[in-house]
Amino acid sequence: KMLRRVLCTVLFMGALPSLAEVSQGHISVVLLGATGDLSKKYLWQGLFQLYMDQVSSGHSFTFHGAALTALEPGQRLMFDVLKKLACPPDESPNRCAVLKDQFLKLSQYHQLKTAENYTVLNREIETLLHQEGLKEAGRIFYFSVPPFAYTEIARHINSSCRPPPGAWLRVVLEKPFGHDLESAQQLAEELTSFFREEEMYRVDHYLGKQAVAHILPFRDQNRQFLDPIWNRHHVERVEIVLKETVDAKGRTSFYEQYGVIRDVLQNHLTEALMFLTMELPANVSRAEEVLQCKLQAFQSLRGLDKNSAVLGQYQAYASQVQEELQKAQDYISTTPTFAGVLIHSDNLRWEGVPFLLTSGKALDERVGYVRVLFKNRAYCTQSETLRDAEHSQCKAKQIIFYIGHGTLNTPAVLVSRNLFRPVMPEGSWREALGQSDLHIFGQPLSDYYVYSPVKERDAYSVLISNIYHGRKDFFITTENLLASWAFWTPLLDSISHRPLRLYPGGVENQHLLDFEMESGEVAFTLAEPVELLKPSRLMPSDYRTTQSKFRQSALISAWSEDLISQLASDIEKTASRSVARSGQFHLALSGGSSPVVLFQRLARHHYAFPWKHTHIWLVDERCVPLTDTESNFFSLHSHLLQSVRVPYFNVHPMPVHLNQRLCVEEDGGTELYAKEIVALVANASFDLVLLGVGADGHTASLFPQSENGLEGAPTVVLTESPVKPHQRMSLSLPLINKAKQVFVLVLGKGKHDITILLSRVGHEPRKWPISGVSPSSGQLVWYVDYEALLG
Amino acid sequence: KMLRRVLCTVLFMGALPSLAEVSQGHISVVLLGATGDLSKKYLWQGLFQLYMDQVSSGHSFTFHGAALTALEPGQRLMFDVLKKLACPPDESPNRCAVLKDQFLKLSQYHQLKTAENYTVLNREIETLLHQEGLKEAGRIFYFSVPPFAYTEIARHINSSCRPPPGAWLRVVLEKPFGHDLESAQQLAEELTSFFREEEMYRVDHYLGKQAVAHILPFRDQNRQFLDPIWNRHHVERVEIVLKETVDAKGRTSFYEQYGVIRDVLQNHLTEALMFLTMELPANVSRAEEVLQCKLQAFQSLRGLDKNSAVLGQYQAYASQVQEELQKAQDYISTTPTFAGVLIHSDNLRWEGVPFLLTSGKALDERVGYVRVLFKNRAYCTQSETLRDAEHSQCKAKQIIFYIGHGTLNTPAVLVSRNLFRPVMPEGSWREALGQSDLHIFGQPLSDYYVYSPVKERDAYSVLISNIYHGRKDFFITTENLLASWAFWTPLLDSISHRPLRLYPGGVENQHLLDFEMESGEVAFTLAEPVELLKPSRLMPSDYRTTQSKFRQSALISAWSEDLISQLASDIEKTASRSVARSGQFHLALSGGSSPVVLFQRLARHHYAFPWKHTHIWLVDERCVPLTDTESNFFSLHSHLLQSVRVPYFNVHPMPVHLNQRLCVEEDGGTELYAKEIVALVANASFDLVLLGVGADGHTASLFPQSENGLEGAPTVVLTESPVKPHQRMSLSLPLINKAKQVFVLVLGKGKHDITILLSRVGHEPRKWPISGVSPSSGQLVWYVDYEALLG
Repeated sequence: KMLRRVLCTVLFMGALPSLAEVSQGHISVVLLGATGDLSKKYLWQGLFQLYMDQVSSGHSFTFHGAALTALEPGQRLMFDVLKKLACPPDESPNRCAVLKDQFLKLSQYHQLKTAENYTVLNREIETLLHQEGLKEAGRIFYFSVPPFAYTEIARHINSSCRPPPGAWLRVVLEKPFGHDLESAQQLAEELTSFFREEEMYRVDHYLGKQAVAHILPFRDQNRQFLDPIWNRHHVERVEIVLKETVDAKGRTSFYEQYGVIRDVLQNHLTEALMFLTMELPANVSRAEEVLQCKLQAFQSLRGLDKNSAVLGQYQAYASQVQEELQKAQDYISTTPTFAGVLIHSDNLRWEGVPFLLTSGKALDERVGYVRVLFKNRAYCTQSETLRDAEHSQCKAKQIIFYIGHGTLNTPAVLVSRNLFRPVMPEGSWREALGQSDLHIFGQPLSDYYVYSPVKERDAYSVLISNIYHGRKDFFITTENLLASWAFWTPLLDSISHRPLRLYPGGVENQHLLDFEMESGEVAFTLAEPVELLKPSRLMPSDYRTTQSKFRQSALISAWSEDLISQLASDIEKTASRSVARSGQFHLALSGGSSPVVLFQRLARHHYAFPWKHTHIWLVDERCVPLTDTESNFFSLHSHLLQSVRVPYFNVHPMPVHLNQRLCVEEDGGTELYAKEIVALVANASFDLVLLGVGADGHTASLFPQSENGLEGAPTVVLTESPVKPHQRMSLSLPLINKAKQVFVLVLGKGKHDITILLSRVGHEPRKWPISGVSPSSGQLVWYVDYEALLG
Repeated sequence: KMLRRVLCTVLFMGALPSLAEVSQGHISVVLLGATGDLSKKYLWQGLFQLYMDQVSSGHSFTFHGAALTALEPGQRLMFDVLKKLACPPDESPNRCAVLKDQFLKLSQYHQLKTAENYTVLNREIETLLHQEGLKEAGRIFYFSVPPFAYTEIARHINSSCRPPPGAWLRVVLEKPFGHDLESAQQLAEELTSFFREEEMYRVDHYLGKQAVAHILPFRDQNRQFLDPIWNRHHVERVEIVLKETVDAKGRTSFYEQYGVIRDVLQNHLTEALMFLTMELPANVSRAEEVLQCKLQAFQSLRGLDKNSAVLGQYQAYASQVQEELQKAQDYISTTPTFAGVLIHSDNLRWEGVPFLLTSGKALDERVGYVRVLFKNRAYCTQSETLRDAEHSQCKAKQIIFYIGHGTLNTPAVLVSRNLFRPVMPEGSWREALGQSDLHIFGQPLSDYYVYSPVKERDAYSVLISNIYHGRKDFFITTENLLASWAFWTPLLDSISHRPLRLYPGGVENQHLLDFEMESGEVAFTLAEPVELLKPSRLMPSDYRTTQSKFRQSALISAWSEDLISQLASDIEKTASRSVARSGQFHLALSGGSSPVVLFQRLARHHYAFPWKHTHIWLVDERCVPLTDTESNFFSLHSHLLQSVRVPYFNVHPMPVHLNQRLCVEEDGGTELYAKEIVALVANASFDLVLLGVGADGHTASLFPQSENGLEGAPTVVLTESPVKPHQRMSLSLPLINKAKQVFVLVLGKGKHDITILLSRVGHEPRKWPISGVSPSSGQLVWYVDYEALLG
């Protein structure tokens, strides 16, 4: 009743919109969790700001705080918060006082606990609208509650609180949205059963940070300058950083389940990353176009693995967890409070550019920024003293989206003066002058064009305004959310029990958390300090490859991951030696599943591999078109060739597909391949042949009890496999045995029996073709993993 | 006679070596041009230093100054020089005074002008040795004379002054050694007719600079640190710089013929470059091994062209030349006094690393250095203030061989403290401490380990000592010299009449000489200042593309650069539309030179191009192997395919090379290609065909007055070109006309006549095959540049 009276008063006050003007309709805002921390700190202030901004917009408003608390104490708690609402500095104190008074009167507390409570709330809204003769524009439900409560609340809203047709519903959700891909999918499915996609506004408050929100508009408005340089040819690296000085004390019950990657990187920093890497849509303010470009950018990200990240934990964290969560003294938390992650995008624009995402608690300073550092290609003939900021091409060139805090202590956009003078929207950003004693990233502030917001706005005020305006591009869609979790989950899985670097916190961290990139991986720069080492910790370097003999030849064995690393680096060494000697490296590769991991390793590491001088041959091929997914060449292409730069001429797939038919003898495919080998490979002696072994003892596509290719001339043959596709093409055993080196890779428990058998039998290629591999003047090395060797 | 007495006195003085000790034999040093500038400034002092250092070595010495001047005035001139010889600070004054006295007595002047003079000199040396009963160790002839005098003197020495068998001859030659490859070869041949290779010591006094001479030993002694990082993965760039403040005044008669590249880059800076880039021989003190590695390093250098260099001339140079060389007022000198050259080495170690060689006169400071800057791969979590030099991986990492002058004003070797503490030879280099207020390359001196020579030695003293010790690795062999000229001559030829950037000199140069690298080329950063512009120059940005009609089809014209940009972006648009529609884009490309610029543009820009879904077809091909540089496919591969990621399966070169032979009808290459097109391209209708036009009106490889391919079925044909290679394969006109879009690119003045002609004629493919291009249901667009259109 009180509310009704207030609304009338407000509507008919002279200074406020007339009835005609409120024809836009009424908006009811329901804040769930109205007395919680977030509401106290930001949300009520944001709603008040919305009211101040939109009071003349033609909409009328009511604000409904809700919580589980009973009516009377809830009311008291809520109005204690409302009374403390602040007037922004750019608002006249008089107007603000009037509006604050109105805002308080338009706000009402509700206990929302039972289904009945929701029905009552709905009825109250309807009644009020009816009595005032107001058209309903829409309802906003802001979920400032823990995620376990989402489903229950969502069900109630859906069943009892939907506005009538013609008015919109907007539900606003706060993270966490799951803690990995699966849980996020589950939560998303549940919510989708209650709300349509366009009704859901998932908040990432970073998208409300003014500097982050301006990344896309900046790229759009400065296309003329950025088009030529916003790519791998000009960008040296990108840093996306959120450093905190506070630790997790008092929040460990939340933090222990999430950690820094889920808390900051998966959402905030990833969103900033997307704004930087995505292709620019023609219209950056159209949410649908932005979303499509963002999703494409997610597709281009190279998958992460455990070597993509360095992780740390501040030393006090363990005892904080033990205390707050009542854990035992020997409880060890594996939750990272610091992470540095190296991300690569594999599209043509960004290939090779390192994106470093870093965040942590208990660091030396509080600061957030996105920094794009450009390559320096200039030589300045004049000595340093004369290098003025605007004209010197020798000063660092960078664009910085300064999110806040830190040295500047304000959101800002900085562009090096020797890059360009950016176009900035005059109404919302203005050039900041003076303060030239500050240094930002090693350069005096005077080296930059510096812009800061005309009005500094809290992220939640920005977001609440965007909810009101239905600007969905400022929120995380379900697709966007799942793409992000799909990207991060493999890393989270691979590090779930990894030891963390302990750090003391604050300035004491010194260089302990510095890390370096190398070949697509990152590692801490300094070795682990001895005093922080836990004795129980597994030292991967304790397990290394062991060397021995197998069938009179060299044997290298290890757990499969180490084995593959060793094999890849041995192949690289062989390649470099061969290129140094003869200018070329002729590598013949087998099909099958085992080499796939190897191909991936070669593609992802080994940047020094002399691909330009490498010729790729096939050891064997299935008689299917090369573009068939069953084709050995297709697999080789997908996992290796498309990621490296082997010249077209140096790639030699087997000609299984001639005259539109497969492996027909008269088409002469085998002769053709043999001739090509003779023409290009000196003495038809490959520098390296990589083989596998089948459980039946086959190798290449040479099968037991088959005639073809086991003896006779060194040539290429057609063979029959016992499994589909039956027809195969293969190098013959005598041709393989002419190679300078032969590596045989044997992986997995499934190969244990044949491995044991091979260790006992002699040269019997008709029974076990692999036993006939014995390079006449080359070297044979067996790479057998512990599973194959030990069962 | 006097000399004889002195030698006896010297030999029998108590403080000096006994007879037994002089059993190493006698050395006669003949300095030709004994009263010239170089002799006065450096050579006599160097010989005196040699005497002081080697007086106890067991050798005895005599020194013979020689010149064209008559005996009496020559003697006076020479002894005026000798009297002024200085005692080095590290020598005791007493010992020095005694030795200087002896040195003067052992030195004698000779007039060497006629053949007779040389015979007399030889007789005097022989007589002296005979009378004293001394064994002859060897003779040094130091040519400090202009190069035109070399041959004559060499002839006399060879015929009259050779020492007897068992004693060595060393002739020391001063640059210039020719002014291009041809003249250097000629001079080398002449000298080789008089002296054996091992007798010739060609001086590059840079090799006597202590910091330069230490590059190889440094690399050798620090292999453990450098092995992992001395390569393209770790080195960002290398700068080799010699800046001078003086200008060429008074020396223009020499300078006008040579210029800065011949004077400094071809010799001094190139030698330093070789020391950096060559592979390390097992033994760096073995001249033969060093030479072999150096020659290999020369072989790896990528050829230079005019875009590899920026060139300048200080403004006063022109009037100095006019005055000193009595040239007319309108004489224009094209001699550069400043050069910045970008060099790439194409071996695996250095591929992609820019080596910048820079030198000039009338610059802002005098300094010489070699600077190796390493890549920075680290992220430092702690904020900047705490970055100590030794542990911070975020400070720049560099190794500097500081040749002299400049800020440090001493030779030095500097290694960033965050790299490693270098191993330095204790006897000759010592750590320099203090002076931490200096900054070197943007960092305080305290960020480096700094070493300077224990004894600072003048380059000539070092070199004369090396001549005495027979250390040929400190001198330029004939092969080395010719390799260097072979490398530099193409650049020198290509720039011989190029306009130079004029610069005022000194600090006034400001940023005028700064230059930047881009795609393997260099250019000045700032545009030519307007007041220096020649009025005839075109302003490309004044002209943009214009649209019109040509032969009833769309015409787009512009200056060639704009035209190519427009064409590239139209192709990308077509590609994206096609992929959006059908999932694929079938692009058929022509050979020839015009598309090369287009290919490069597509490779360097257009990151969003859907290469993954693009099929590349050839419009025509020359009947040569695909790896032949004449092949259209090879050119397409070099300029486009190797830079983008078109899947292997989507690349369709024409099968001109089957059964090891070229374009033989029975091999069915044309049918094969036609079948492939039918199999993959819907309705055999390419999405886009790019054509060119020949001056004779040919297009694709369809030539006037030829039958094949002009009409009939849409197919692939063999044709005959009037120019080599005659045999071609081509899409037929009917097949081309099935395309959805056809773009015709016409560039350059050479196409003006055919362009005019085509604007007038109708459909006459037998006379002008291009006139038959008329897509039956597709679109035709002409891209014609202003030169072709307007002549």
